[in-house]
Amino acid sequence: MSPEVRFDFEREARIGFTEAVFCKGKTSDQIALVLSQAQDTGKRLLLTRLDRDALDALDPVWRDAIDYEAASQTGIYGTWSPPSGPARVAIVTAGTSDLPVAREAARTQAFYGAPSREIADVGVAGLWRVLAHQEELRGFPVVIVVAGMDGALVSVLGGLVGGVLIAVPVSTGYGAARGGRTALDSALTSCAPGVVAVNIDNGYGGACAALRTLRAIDGAAQGAHGAVTEDEPSGVS
Amino acid sequence: MSPEVRFDFEREARIGFTEAVFCKGKTSDQIALVLSQAQDTGKRLLLTRLDRDALDALDPVWRDAIDYEAASQTGIYGTWSPPSGPARVAIVTAGTSDLPVAREAARTQAFYGAPSREIADVGVAGLWRVLAHQEELRGFPVVIVVAGMDGALVSVLGGLVGGVLIAVPVSTGYGAARGGRTALDSALTSCAPGVVAVNIDNGYGGACAALRTLRAIDGAAQGAHGAVTEDEPSGVS
Amino acid sequence: MSPEVRFDFEREARIGFTEAVFCKGKTSDQIALVLSQAQDTGKRLLLTRLDRDALDALDPVWRDAIDYEAASQTGIYGTWSPPSGPARVAIVTAGTSDLPVAREAARTQAFYGAPSREIADVGVAGLWRVLAHQEELRGFPVVIVVAGMDGALVSVLGGLVGGVLIAVPVSTGYGAARGGRTALDSALTSCAPGVVAVNIDNGYGGACAALRTLRAIDGAAQGAHGAVTEDEPSGVS
Amino acid sequence: MSPEVRFDFEREARIGFTEAVFCKGKTSDQIALVLSQAQDTGKRLLLTRLDRDALDALDPVWRDAIDYEAASQTGIYGTWSPPSGPARVAIVTAGTSDLPVAREAARTQAFYGAPSREIADVGVAGLWRVLAHQEELRGFPVVIVVAGMDGALVSVLGGLVGGVLIAVPVSTGYGAARGGRTALDSALTSCAPGVVAVNIDNGYGGACAALRTLRAIDGAAQGAHGAVTEDEPSGVS
Amino acid sequence: MSPEVRFDFEREARIGFTEAVFCKGKTSDQIALVLSQAQDTGKRLLLTRLDRDALDALDPVWRDAIDYEAASQTGIYGTWSPPSGPARVAIVTAGTSDLPVAREAARTQAFYGAPSREIADVGVAGLWRVLAHQEELRGFPVVIVVAGMDGALVSVLGGLVGGVLIAVPVSTGYGAARGGRTALDSALTSCAPGVVAVNIDNGYGGACAALRTLRAIDGAAQGAHGAVTEDEPSGVS
Amino acid sequence: MSPEVRFDFEREARIGFTEAVFCKGKTSDQIALVLSQAQDTGKRLLLTRLDRDALDALDPVWRDAIDYEAASQTGIYGTWSPPSGPARVAIVTAGTSDLPVAREAARTQAFYGAPSREIADVGVAGLWRVLAHQEELRGFPVVIVVAGMDGALVSVLGGLVGGVLIAVPVSTGYGAARGGRTALDSALTSCAPGVVAVNIDNGYGGACAALRTLRAIDGAAQGAHGAVTEDEPSGVS
Amino acid sequence: MSPEVRFDFEREARIGFTEAVFCKGKTSDQIALVLSQAQDTGKRLLLTRLDRDALDALDPVWRDAIDYEAASQTGIYGTWSPPSGPARVAIVTAGTSDLPVAREAARTQAFYGAPSREIADVGVAGLWRVLAHQEELRGFPVVIVVAGMDGALVSVLGGLVGGVLIAVPVSTGYGAARGGRTALDSALTSCAPGVVAVNIDNGYGGACAALRTLRAIDGAAQGAHGAVTEDEPSGVS
Amino acid sequence: MSPEVRFDFEREARIGFTEAVFCKGKTSDQIALVLSQAQDTGKRLLLTRLDRDALDALDPVWRDAIDYEAASQTGIYGTWSPPSGPARVAIVTAGTSDLPVAREAARTQAFYGAPSREIADVGVAGLWRVLAHQEELRGFPVVIVVAGMDGALVSVLGGLVGGVLIAVPVSTGYGAARGGRTALDSALTSCAPGVVAVNIDNGYGGACAALRTLRAIDGAAQGAHGAVTEDEPSGVS
Repeated sequence: MSPEVRFDFEREARIGFTEAVFCKGKTSDQIALVLSQAQDTGKRLLLTRLDRDALDALDPVWRDAIDYEAASQTGIYGTWSPPSGPARVAIVTAGTSDLPVAREAARTQAFYGAPSREIADVGVAGLWRVLAHQEELRGFPVVIVVAGMDGALVSVLGGLVGGVLIAVPVSTGYGAARGGRTALDSALTSCAPGVVAVNIDNGYGGACAALRTLRAIDGAAQGAHGAVTEDEPSGVS
Repeated sequence: MSPEVRFDFEREARIGFTEAVFCKGKTSDQIALVLSQAQDTGKRLLLTRLDRDALDALDPVWRDAIDYEAASQTGIYGTWSPPSGPARVAIVTAGTSDLPVAREAARTQAFYGAPSREIADVGVAGLWRVLAHQEELRGFPVVIVVAGMDGALVSVLGGLVGGVLIAVPVSTGYGAARGGRTALDSALTSCAPGVVAVNIDNGYGGACAALRTLRAIDGAAQGAHGAVTEDEPSGVS
Repeated sequence: MSPEVRFDFEREARIGFTEAVFCKGKTSDQIALVLSQAQDTGKRLLLTRLDRDALDALDPVWRDAIDYEAASQTGIYGTWSPPSGPARVAIVTAGTSDLPVAREAARTQAFYGAPSREIADVGVAGLWRVLAHQEELRGFPVVIVVAGMDGALVSVLGGLVGGVLIAVPVSTGYGAARGGRTALDSALTSCAPGVVAVNIDNGYGGACAALRTLRAIDGAAQGAHGAVTEDEPSGVS
Repeated sequence: MSPEVRFDFEREARIGFTEAVFCKGKTSDQIALVLSQAQDTGKRLLLTRLDRDALDALDPVWRDAIDYEAASQTGIYGTWSPPSGPARVAIVTAGTSDLPVAREAARTQAFYGAPSREIADVGVAGLWRVLAHQEELRGFPVVIVVAGMDGALVSVLGGLVGGVLIAVPVSTGYGAARGGRTALDSALTSCAPGVVAVNIDNGYGGACAALRTLRAIDGAAQGAHGAVTEDEPSGVS
Repeated sequence: MSPEVRFDFEREARIGFTEAVFCKGKTSDQIALVLSQAQDTGKRLLLTRLDRDALDALDPVWRDAIDYEAASQTGIYGTWSPPSGPARVAIVTAGTSDLPVAREAARTQAFYGAPSREIADVGVAGLWRVLAHQEELRGFPVVIVVAGMDGALVSVLGGLVGGVLIAVPVSTGYGAARGGRTALDSALTSCAPGVVAVNIDNGYGGACAALRTLRAIDGAAQGAHGAVTEDEPSGVS
Repeated sequence: MSPEVRFDFEREARIGFTEAVFCKGKTSDQIALVLSQAQDTGKRLLLTRLDRDALDALDPVWRDAIDYEAASQTGIYGTWSPPSGPARVAIVTAGTSDLPVAREAARTQAFYGAPSREIADVGVAGLWRVLAHQEELRGFPVVIVVAGMDGALVSVLGGLVGGVLIAVPVSTGYGAARGGRTALDSALTSCAPGVVAVNIDNGYGGACAALRTLRAIDGAAQGAHGAVTEDEPSGVS
Repeated sequence: MSPEVRFDFEREARIGFTEAVFCKGKTSDQIALVLSQAQDTGKRLLLTRLDRDALDALDPVWRDAIDYEAASQTGIYGTWSPPSGPARVAIVTAGTSDLPVAREAARTQAFYGAPSREIADVGVAGLWRVLAHQEELRGFPVVIVVAGMDGALVSVLGGLVGGVLIAVPVSTGYGAARGGRTALDSALTSCAPGVVAVNIDNGYGGACAALRTLRAIDGAAQGAHGAVTEDEPSGVS
Repeated sequence: MSPEVRFDFEREARIGFTEAVFCKGKTSDQIALVLSQAQDTGKRLLLTRLDRDALDALDPVWRDAIDYEAASQTGIYGTWSPPSGPARVAIVTAGTSDLPVAREAARTQAFYGAPSREIADVGVAGLWRVLAHQEELRGFPVVIVVAGMDGALVSVLGGLVGGVLIAVPVSTGYGAARGGRTALDSALTSCAPGVVAVNIDNGYGGACAALRTLRAIDGAAQGAHGAVTEDEPSGVS
């Protein structure tokens, strides 16, 4: 194995996620090196933050082997087809600027075989838009909210749905938006109970969090979880 | 109803959480007012950040009706008994200073009938401590990690377990710890995929996030989730 | 006049506001000095951030001449009675912790003879609470929103009402609330158009902004405003 | 309707503002999509942050249908002509760098039929410049102050005029100007009572705040505002 | 000499200032140690941030030997009498809260034999107050401006007077005042040319900067300055 | 006069500085407009932050009338020749990256007829370099220190020279240099008494502060300063 | 073992440090619990941030068994005597306020048997003080510099000595000192090569870094270090 | 010598490091000037942050005389050959993005004749990767850890190895990574004792810190260090 890139293919066995390749800042050679490792080991790969220029800079052999989606700047290498069937994860966006991040989340879900339902452009300045979807949204075990600026959609949804609610703040905006930090801080201080957040613009991370939940659900259905050692009682309950 | 305190007892119907009473900064009269509303409507109540002085300042009638736990500064009003049975949520702490926040999480879990398993003082500076628990931790659908300072335990666990991983940063420390912001930012930038975070010191919020997951699991088992409208295909999958 | 305190009694003539006395950090002697200047000139005075200890430290002659309201920590000196008649300003709060700031706004309004309507504890985590008031709120030319934490109520109201909307962020909360800065930044980045903000916890300032609007309304009714010099055309229209 | 762009044409009915199109970061296709929706529904549209390159990238059919103003980077689509008559809003700038933001405000005003009066380059380092306009400025019910750097013009004007005073901080400057945050914080901590602020560089927002005030004035003249429910007395007056 | 406190009595010879004793955080023993060193060497001493409690904690022998001024929390040890004669430095404050810092500056001036002229409470919200003093202020070679909050007085004065202008920001205020950082940043970004600033609340430092100027003036009058080596021409002139 | 650019030619009469033209962000037309106003009134002009591209974009008529200096990105318009005679201001830099800012200061000095002495590249990591100049530096009434990164040179010089010491922080560096904020904060917290600072990279401002001092010196020599009203005694001396 | 406190006694075997007990925020019971674990296992313990009140709150049995040093707020439990012999570590402070942190470092050194040499109060505003020690300082393999405010002493020493130089920033100061962050950032951006820093006020950490170096020295002397696997060549040399 | 660039060739004699040339922001002429000074004095030079464009802009005579390494953007001028023999410093990276910084450290080591051992891509999300190297790492007297994002690898290593541990934070990442500040703050708050940090992306500085340690080791072996004056006992031991 190359000492320079030590791709963590064993990660899948441990936690169910292969390592994704964050392409921004990587050279074409480094990306190609990881792809060839994937080829050698017969693994699929998800490439994120792969902009058009970086894609075009790859050797055509690699480029043609990648299923590329422009809005999300993601590529999928290896045998893969889009998942079908009912979605268990809804991805909700506040405005048009949030779409690229939402799409990164949707593609990550799809890479792992989990379809998602996109509900776009329902920011709270036009409250009727999100209220029109509230019944539908209550049907999802997981809702990902992608929102920049004030991030108010997160708190509104947090009070409307009882499922897992994952906020993905977006770096949209200027001035007091502070590159997404205001949306992030808003999500973290939401008065709606149990809202969680991932890093700014991290659609990939939001999807992985959703996938952990789906796995918890499936594990429970299969009886895999819930075992607990008996010897040490918990602290306060 | 008083125009001053408009307690949201209907919240439970919508999202499954009653409103908790954040007592810091509230007067004894305001706390008593909420308690009497709970009494009138026959509801249970969880009181958080209720320090010993605030408890002692309450009328003895109220004070004696509260199940108080000092480390977590939480009180439970109304008919309630600690849950029993196997825990589905593990609460892991890095150091002794993280315990009060961890206990707030455990009490919140307990208030909602969900037992939890506490694994304390396993920070990564002594890596053997957390490695000794890794097999056990893989058995939980949800792990809450409570950690201040560098928050490195979050990333280490994120690479060891595949279940839902909720980071609760803690305001422990001085200087570059920035009141917990470093631990929070560490969790948000964890290279382990799908880690989520709640606000600093927010044990209550971490527990609510866990409860949302448990509910998603239980809902799935009961077939309640998963329905999705068919008419609008998702964006990219 | 004392060289140390140069109270700006002429301000009222110029902009319609007497100077208010911000008491925090002032000595009893300095407060008494201003009061005696008011007595000498026959002026009324509004005292803000006058906590109970500062009030008690005043000479009884002054203390008894002050109409004190504890929740808002405000005092009114001089001949004054609460205004009556219909309110043109609504003061809306998200939670119980926002009340002291809201009351400071209400008292400032009252000091200047303008009644206000308080609508308390209608944060968006329980969205039904604010929606129940939306028709009423549309009837006010000015709405002051007092909200800490995520400040999401500001954006929701900004999309519901067309009148002047003044956000007063509140320093409630911990961690990512950053002493009210998150609520402030949320208000400033609200996607609802035309929302304005004043400083954190500045109920007095929010009320003064409302009073400026009321004066603009009254001036317009009296034909006082609207005159404009003709010689220089505006830039782009 | 497209699921990707859900333009809020109903907003006008609710709060009197159509949604403006913030063009920065939007693709030509997304802008064209909104324009075609406007065409289909017969609506006018305001486009902000539309720089020359983005304009040129539009299909000529759309480009030619837009009234473009370069300094403000705004475009107006649909039947529209500049408003005439006396201005009720003054837009004051401290220096030359503030002009683009001031022009965005003026164009927004004009889009909604409200003429404005521009008073440029009257920063306080040359105090005589603003003092020469003080009488004129007292005649306006609303004054928008556009200022970067130290933002001192805001406080000076706040002490000179009694009308509504809206500060629009500007990101001009370097170092301690912190991208406009210093001007914003200066406005928020102005000792002049009742000054309000919008986000940095947000000329559009400043104008919308002014329009809300004009509407309050007009509504008052028409007897539309002032009604209040009688059943719940306000808190402290 | 004690190894623990190495008081820099030689500083006076080098740069004309004895070291002042910043008392906050020092123990009574440490303060006494410095005083005894001063006694032994026959030096005068200026003590700053010496609050009443710290003064009272000193041995009466030392306490009685100190000329204490309460508002500025300064003490002077050693033979000293207030300077007389015309002042060459004006100390201007914006509001009452700025007085303690202004007094620290005045006392530092006085300690070094330089009288100063205090002009208090002339903040720009009442612009007439400072304008009434503009002619007088133009007569001073040095003006120290002590101002918190928005610090707008600094810029206004910077445009009115041509002498040396030293801003001393004050930590007054809350929220966006950021403990004086906004006033500091305002001074640093003042559009008035050549304004300089010292640290927040640093009245002592502002006075020392003024004293350096006075010394430059006196040195010039005595022909002490202006000499320059001839061998290396300056870069661009 | 154009309503768009209101150049403050009267400033010179009041405070002795003509307004300088900060060219960054100004269009060629705006710069030309100011130049033609200067031409019409027979004034000289200093142009700062005029990079090579902006210079080349000017009409050749204007470009050829400007004395341009590339390192400092400054231009001088109008009759002017470099000053001669002994320098009274030393400009000291810590490293090579500080030179452009130092040169802006030198050119500003030269524009106003004041020669300066440049001492370059004497940062404290090689302490011998600055110590070799300490005697010479004590001969200047004013020393400008231009330094980025840790800004330690400011404190070292502050302890070596007794004249006026003006720190100009520089935005050199990365990471913890925070764009010059660390150098600025270092200067503001220097333990050397009486150090003052101007904004980051503000060579122009540093020079103006020096010029204010020179004027104070010259005024004192001419008996112009020092007058003071007698009626109000200063606060504490 | 208690599940609540899991003291890491095995740490010593791995990295040569026992876990120190950071007492701030710990209850008396928690401290006593650790002490009893130490007693049971026959270990020595270092307690840091143990203020006088916390010490007094301990059971006298424990209190009397602790060697307490007040300035550093440290306690040592177990058999221990101060080390003797020549010091290999110098601890240098800039001012009196830095002493408590310096003493924490010295005590930590002493706990591990390493004497240290304290050189106090040699800040650069009086440069002669540190220059007088430069030859002596060059004789130490490790120098710890404890400095708050501008932290300029770090850079000056970095250019004078060639040994390991560890900066311990101190939270002394106000305003722009930002609780020690300015001193920290100064150290990190020092132009002197190879300076390293630990957290603000972290005297314990600075000493541990020094101890790691001493161990590296001793290990080298014993031939313990320097072994390297041969199979993978390093990247660029 | 040129007054503009005063290269510190004497530094080597004092502290063992020649001054490195930080090329970013320097002109080709300035770089050439330093190179010619090196040529004249027969010195070797290390050039850092010399990107390909800057290299190509040099005169071919200079360019060809430089040993350039692209990944690290470093150049070495003068007679030099890569060091051989066993490495005493390990350079560990968390991910691929950390390589350029790690290589700068390795090249700096090599310039000074010290080989280093690179262990790449062993971030804690795949904990097995670093654990596989723990025994090897314990054999090094110095370990440099290069890590961005959460910087958790620093704490994990800090608990595994007892040698000197130098953290070099990396500016990789987005959002909450805050340009490397989170990794820096994580290292500074590491619960592993005695971890030290240098500035973000400062591979050169990390290497210099390692070299100071090696020199301390070698000095100790030669008996050069350890001498200490006897007259002043240290403070607490």
